Amino acid sequence: MSSTPRLSQLQQPDAFLRRHLGPDDAEQQVMLAALGLPSRAALIEQTVPPAIRLQQPLALPSALDEQAALAKLKGYAEQNQVWTSLIGMGYHGTLTPPVILRNVLENPGWYTAYTPYQPEIAQGRLEALLNFQQLTIDLTGLDLASASLLDEATAAAEAMALAKRVTKSKSNLFFVDQHCHPQTISVVRTRAEAFGFELIIDSVDTLAAHQVFGALLQYPDTHGEIRDLRPLIEQLHAQQALACVAADLLSLLLLTPPGELGADVVFGSAQRFGVPMGYGGPHAAFFASREAYKRAIPGRIIGVSKDTRGNVALRMALQTREQHIRREKANSNICTAQVLLANIASCYAVYHGPQGLLRIAQRVQRLTAILAEGLAQKGIARDNRHFFDTLTLDVGGSQTAIIESAQAARINLRILGRGKLGVSLDETCDEQTVEQLWAIFLGADHGLSVSALDAGEVPSGIPSALERSSRYLSHPVFNAHHSETEMLRYLKQLESKDLALNQAMIPLGSCTMKLNASSEMIPITWPEFANLHPFAPLEQAQGYKLMIDELEAWLCAITGFDAISMQPNSGAQGEFAGLLAIRRYHESRGDSQRTICLIPASAHGTNPASAQMASLRVQIVECDAQGNVDLDDLKLKAAEAGEQLACLMATYPSTHGVYEEGIREICEVIHVHGGQVYMDGANLNAQVGLTRPADIGADVSHMNLHKTFCIPHGGGGPGMGPIGVRAHLAPFVANHPVIELKGPDPQNGAVSAAPWGSASILPISWMYIAMMGPQLADATEVAILAANYLAHKLNGAFPVLYSGRNGRVAHECILDLRPLKADTGISEEDVAKRLIDYGFHAPTMSFPVPGTLMIEPTESESLHELDRFVEAMLSIRAEIDKVQSGAWPAEDNPLKQAPHTLADVTGNWQRPYSIEQAVTPSAHTRAHKYWPTVNRVDNVYGDRNLFCACVPLDAYRE
Amino acid sequence: MSSTPRLSQLQQPDAFLRRHLGPDDAEQQVMLAALGLPSRAALIEQTVPPAIRLQQPLALPSALDEQAALAKLKGYAEQNQVWTSLIGMGYHGTLTPPVILRNVLENPGWYTAYTPYQPEIAQGRLEALLNFQQLTIDLTGLDLASASLLDEATAAAEAMALAKRVTKSKSNLFFVDQHCHPQTISVVRTRAEAFGFELIIDSVDTLAAHQVFGALLQYPDTHGEIRDLRPLIEQLHAQQALACVAADLLSLLLLTPPGELGADVVFGSAQRFGVPMGYGGPHAAFFASREAYKRAIPGRIIGVSKDTRGNVALRMALQTREQHIRREKANSNICTAQVLLANIASCYAVYHGPQGLLRIAQRVQRLTAILAEGLAQKGIARDNRHFFDTLTLDVGGSQTAIIESAQAARINLRILGRGKLGVSLDETCDEQTVEQLWAIFLGADHGLSVSALDAGEVPSGIPSALERSSRYLSHPVFNAHHSETEMLRYLKQLESKDLALNQAMIPLGSCTMKLNASSEMIPITWPEFANLHPFAPLEQAQGYKLMIDELEAWLCAITGFDAISMQPNSGAQGEFAGLLAIRRYHESRGDSQRTICLIPASAHGTNPASAQMASLRVQIVECDAQGNVDLDDLKLKAAEAGEQLACLMATYPSTHGVYEEGIREICEVIHVHGGQVYMDGANLNAQVGLTRPADIGADVSHMNLHKTFCIPHGGGGPGMGPIGVRAHLAPFVANHPVIELKGPDPQNGAVSAAPWGSASILPISWMYIAMMGPQLADATEVAILAANYLAHKLNGAFPVLYSGRNGRVAHECILDLRPLKADTGISEEDVAKRLIDYGFHAPTMSFPVPGTLMIEPTESESLHELDRFVEAMLSIRAEIDKVQSGAWPAEDNPLKQAPHTLADVTGNWQRPYSIEQAVTPSAHTRAHKYWPTVNRVDNVYGDRNLFCACVPLDAYRE
Repeated sequence: MSSTPRLSQLQQPDAFLRRHLGPDDAEQQVMLAALGLPSRAALIEQTVPPAIRLQQPLALPSALDEQAALAKLKGYAEQNQVWTSLIGMGYHGTLTPPVILRNVLENPGWYTAYTPYQPEIAQGRLEALLNFQQLTIDLTGLDLASASLLDEATAAAEAMALAKRVTKSKSNLFFVDQHCHPQTISVVRTRAEAFGFELIIDSVDTLAAHQVFGALLQYPDTHGEIRDLRPLIEQLHAQQALACVAADLLSLLLLTPPGELGADVVFGSAQRFGVPMGYGGPHAAFFASREAYKRAIPGRIIGVSKDTRGNVALRMALQTREQHIRREKANSNICTAQVLLANIASCYAVYHGPQGLLRIAQRVQRLTAILAEGLAQKGIARDNRHFFDTLTLDVGGSQTAIIESAQAARINLRILGRGKLGVSLDETCDEQTVEQLWAIFLGADHGLSVSALDAGEVPSGIPSALERSSRYLSHPVFNAHHSETEMLRYLKQLESKDLALNQAMIPLGSCTMKLNASSEMIPITWPEFANLHPFAPLEQAQGYKLMIDELEAWLCAITGFDAISMQPNSGAQGEFAGLLAIRRYHESRGDSQRTICLIPASAHGTNPASAQMASLRVQIVECDAQGNVDLDDLKLKAAEAGEQLACLMATYPSTHGVYEEGIREICEVIHVHGGQVYMDGANLNAQVGLTRPADIGADVSHMNLHKTFCIPHGGGGPGMGPIGVRAHLAPFVANHPVIELKGPDPQNGAVSAAPWGSASILPISWMYIAMMGPQLADATEVAILAANYLAHKLNGAFPVLYSGRNGRVAHECILDLRPLKADTGISEEDVAKRLIDYGFHAPTMSFPVPGTLMIEPTESESLHELDRFVEAMLSIRAEIDKVQSGAWPAEDNPLKQAPHTLADVTGNWQRPYSIEQAVTPSAHTRAHKYWPTVNRVDNVYGDRNLFCACVPLDAYRE
Repeated sequence: MSSTPRLSQLQQPDAFLRRHLGPDDAEQQVMLAALGLPSRAALIEQTVPPAIRLQQPLALPSALDEQAALAKLKGYAEQNQVWTSLIGMGYHGTLTPPVILRNVLENPGWYTAYTPYQPEIAQGRLEALLNFQQLTIDLTGLDLASASLLDEATAAAEAMALAKRVTKSKSNLFFVDQHCHPQTISVVRTRAEAFGFELIIDSVDTLAAHQVFGALLQYPDTHGEIRDLRPLIEQLHAQQALACVAADLLSLLLLTPPGELGADVVFGSAQRFGVPMGYGGPHAAFFASREAYKRAIPGRIIGVSKDTRGNVALRMALQTREQHIRREKANSNICTAQVLLANIASCYAVYHGPQGLLRIAQRVQRLTAILAEGLAQKGIARDNRHFFDTLTLDVGGSQTAIIESAQAARINLRILGRGKLGVSLDETCDEQTVEQLWAIFLGADHGLSVSALDAGEVPSGIPSALERSSRYLSHPVFNAHHSETEMLRYLKQLESKDLALNQAMIPLGSCTMKLNASSEMIPITWPEFANLHPFAPLEQAQGYKLMIDELEAWLCAITGFDAISMQPNSGAQGEFAGLLAIRRYHESRGDSQRTICLIPASAHGTNPASAQMASLRVQIVECDAQGNVDLDDLKLKAAEAGEQLACLMATYPSTHGVYEEGIREICEVIHVHGGQVYMDGANLNAQVGLTRPADIGADVSHMNLHKTFCIPHGGGGPGMGPIGVRAHLAPFVANHPVIELKGPDPQNGAVSAAPWGSASILPISWMYIAMMGPQLADATEVAILAANYLAHKLNGAFPVLYSGRNGRVAHECILDLRPLKADTGISEEDVAKRLIDYGFHAPTMSFPVPGTLMIEPTESESLHELDRFVEAMLSIRAEIDKVQSGAWPAEDNPLKQAPHTLADVTGNWQRPYSIEQAVTPSAHTRAHKYWPTVNRVDNVYGDRNLFCACVPLDAYRE
């Protein structure tokens, strides 16, 4: 008889865990041996303070294999009903061109890329973002655009904040047209309350009656009306107030751009440019302003600069505005944006070009005009005189019958009060849609015909005075890639310029560039998840409900919290939402004076920026020489704050990459003084399965689903930053004005446009947890093992700055480059750029300590890749030695000249080192060379000569 | 009132046509102007003989836009029912790892690549194919493997042919074990009849009674039995006959490999290594033999050679065996193989590694053993004593009830005669499958439990004497990429080595590298198309039926034929099938003496190779100086053949790239002499919408769906070569032994394993035709325009060898490099390799005329890309001039040294031209450099030192 193993020994032949983890068991043993340890358990014993260790496995269902998880989630998805949603309100059906779907959204070359902090390895996605900015500039009629915000509603809130900043007005009043989308008004209200602004939400006819610092208008408005904004803008300008206009991007093909009407800020959603509705997100918001406000604009801007050869090179401009530099003085706390979605929208514009976009807009308008004409002929009254794609109809007592008829046809209309119904057409609509709508509103025997009306005179919905006359998208990039072959190659060219996770480790400290598995990504483009309108009736979204409820329960089990708010669509949003909950909690107890927020010196810049947005007063707590919170200073500051103490914001493990032993005590100090503990979730991945934020003492924490739970970075977004809260804070998290959420106080405003934030990427985290189950702890342990392995291997060449008990680091480690710089002039930046020549993305530079590199290998990197990194770092160290010894000049050596490009190699090579040394310094690079497409980028030049639109082709010619 | 265009002016805002075509209207005007023509119509007037012009648009439905076509096809797909198919017979459920699905099968970097005739731009896919060969060698236990055949059944036929070739036996008898799969037997029978071999299909117990040149055995056999083949093989060897063994690849993880049992040839399907069943295909067949037969093996073999730097370089070995060189003396007519699918299978093995594969095989075996034990305990008799995954059960009178019970559970069993049922388990099965099967066979109260049986002693199905003991897959490539991150990067590394359509034009004459649109590719991985067993009951495949019927009707409309046979799964198979139909037709009329096949000298090598397979005698017809068929010689040869004339094989437009004026007369000559006209479909893309094969006079023609109808080349397959026939030939095309087809004589054997060939890629062609409709003619016209534009632009530098009336070429043109070679020593190969430095795949070299390049730009290339090609060619011409003038030495110049690699650049550069001249000779290459990873490959060395397995890592170290 054969020795076939038992089935029970063959369980889960393709368990996901072994695909997710980089090192297999044997490799882990090698790594442990290098550390002199017998087991992973021994390492964790040495690393994580025993007092906070979780005593049992995570209470999660057993791991499913990839196919089983996909099948289970498909079962949920099938419980969603994909109706035709003509609800409008900022969300529209759209057609994602298949070539973009396949080659951007479903392509790891795009979605696994990191935020382009290292511009030399990111010229492809930077170019796509520059296209997005050009698109924004051209369609809004303004000078300057940013590279995406989170959604239209938060963009509105950012516009309000910008208005206050740039007007420096003494007025505390901000006017909001009551005909803005309700979710926009809600988010603006939330933000205004936090800032202490007073809102006037009223008809624009009352605008003149108020002395304001700015106003929010919408064009076309939520009911579809198109108003000439010029008189309103003049009124605002007369009082030195800013006009902030929310606009529909597609309508701007036909309408005079708000910028030409005088608007100061114009923003909106780019969703309908090829990004599926996704039950609310993610999509990119566009944001444009006058160039004069360039230092006040929130979020990232891509700018044109030059590299050391004088060639055009793109990079993020004016970073000094941003939270990671300016901390509580930043314009905004925004960090992760919506790069992947902005790039889809910009590619949609590149593929259609100006004529194609115009044709789409004209067709939507014409269909709407024919629909309107037919309804008017049959006596249905309309509220809005003009329109682009949206009609608000007064159907009086027929409302219920019409709604039922629409339901029978599986069409969602917008249901308004008092006998009103809204309908918005989009590029997925056609003649049949119009005839269906007639049948719904008028009955089957309506006697109308699209072709008959189309043959006659149908009044346009666009007011003559507001017809667009200015040109747009004349740059060649929007006029050259209209065949699929050309588009495919353009996308490939952009992708090839960039270094993403599909090519190499991206060892960014704090950013957790772990595997984004294909099986996690597959569900997001299933039509059942992709094509739901966020305000579709809940009955149609039962699949989403099952998935989200389960994910919330799992996240509670992982964190120990009692409730989850899924609304914040970035980590920074989560911070803001969490701090707001703390403020509301204190206020509910009559403690409105509690406004001091303690933040350790080592914190992410987002922390103070978020605190500032919540009108909390930031007090910095010092760190000791080990990088730990100085407990004495904390006690002192907490005592000083006393009754005014609102909270502490703490990161755990600390941003210094260690498990602070004193964390429990730190939390207790805060609680003793009546404060709350906000735990920054950036390093939650080092806790999962080993300890839990709520157990340690946190009252609220956000979870970066795009880091810990595998949502890819997308080149700088999307992210998701849901917050977990203990029960006493649960009533104080965000609610929503359109879809009321169960749990939080219905009076609470929204923090994001959509009820569950970027719902369509939640399947990624659901899949990850479903496939890992309690083995999530293995991932955490292997991440810690990998970090300690790197720290051990590199410590001799580059000292590890901080470590915990037993000399161990947590899931990341900081290498101190300052002594070497003092000795040799070689900086952390030189090492970072030189790593590009070795085929690596640089680690985090100078955070949290200037002059250092922070390295986080994650659990997904194999021993082979870790060793390749070690080899590169040691080789770089040997290069530094040659500079130190004088073998190479201080300025002309491979480090200072890094990264090297093809142009270097094909030019007149006269360096004191060889071409081989420059571009293929390792065996890996000889076999698999990644070429950066620009030399080191000049940041100062770019900021001094700010240019944030597409570059004329001439500029590329030398 | 606004000037909004009417809806009727806005139809199809995103018509597919403008995405498929490279040049837009304005660019076409530029091209026409260059030719001095006012319109496309004028060009076609000058180009296509009026006598054969189609007088009306193609009778096809109006074009659908991409979303509408996808929606319609999805509607069809949903009419397929995806049951659990446990039918076996060579098709098994399998799990495609998501990382491979997304990054290979759905990735244009892999699927748009061409056959690796230019090895310098194909090292990635060549490495994957080498892995496939290593996998084959290791699992079969033989020395030499090829890089895939079309399917297991045709591989069996090729094995038979090989046996005859290498034994040179006088015997005409070939033995076939009656327990081979029925479709295998059928295909072998068809092929044997064509060759004139006699088959003995009987129990292997009778083998000794016959004097044969070879025998076909199956291991395990179609009923699951595993027999020790050693005695049979000894009997065969005793009479100098070859043992050809069809084997199940997964079973070979547990079974002694047939090679170790003495088998001479081992082959089978690699489908269950991650390739979806796809209702029959495409999948790769593996094929291994003793190395002694290396010159006799059919199809492509990848071999290891070296480049000019002495580095390891892969390429197709021993090409002189193949049809494009040896024509009717070739081993086989096989040309397109199944590269994409072979690569998926090899990547599946790389990802799982030896342990993972073993675990999968053990689990399938254990589940089967438990199933068998339970059934045995309950008294169900089994025919096969031993088994791997397949049981043949004797259920007697319960057969009908069991089948009904299985149907209720949506499970397909294999239904055998006389109360027998077959069941085959696979990697998608689990404990539940086994318990479901018990319930089906025994009723719900069977009282068995998988876990209970698993805990006890369950006899293995593997005979002790045949347990595998030898090692396999010990090469590092199978042991290094088991985490998803590592696999993702490995796939990316391979992809990055290659040049595919997503990077540049591939201007291959005759091969039609047009756009493979994303929307055409999306449906093939829908589960409803991907997961059907080819022998599932027809009721479950109604979606396929609708799609195939419609596609057949459309192809009839396009070609003018009366019927289509979808079975041939490559163009060469189509030729064989068509010639067979002609032979059968003649025989049906008592004309069995008609065995002469006339073939013009300019024909593809496949033509004579196919004729030889059909036992036709090839007579070459000369061509005149213009490249046209010499009509006088044709008349002479036809008259000489007289009553023996079977047919003419002709390509139209000719392989010389012109529309021969005399084609009607040529066909008439053949018909007058009682012959049939076989039209090679290679150039059908130049006919579509302008003329039709049947109208011209063809009786039968194959259609390369992978060329004309957009199925991508996949790096060398899959293809599909259905044949169209006039009504009189319709009864004579292939049928199928398992799924009887309506139309052809049921007595006709099969030519492929599956009834509709590679059914799962037919959606690609369906989508293309659905989205183009009658506008297919536009594609043809633009292809002709592009070819004439190139011919016009290049003619001054490189003379165009042939042209038709008015000096126009058809859809491709031949550049004559011979005069330049005579003058300068620079050959067509030097130009081809130099084009790589400019970022292009070379055109077709030396076909149909030695010393030439044949260029086919297709309709999908933009004017920008055409001009880039022209610029490169003119630049190369200027380089040749520098050689001619003596400015550069005859051997050390950029042409002779091409292509240039990174190793050139980083080495000690001492050439008489600059690095810049070498690697970035154009603006495009400065911006978007493609790097070949090897220098020019030494073909002679590789053939003299044949090595066709994975290279030891040491070999890569210099």
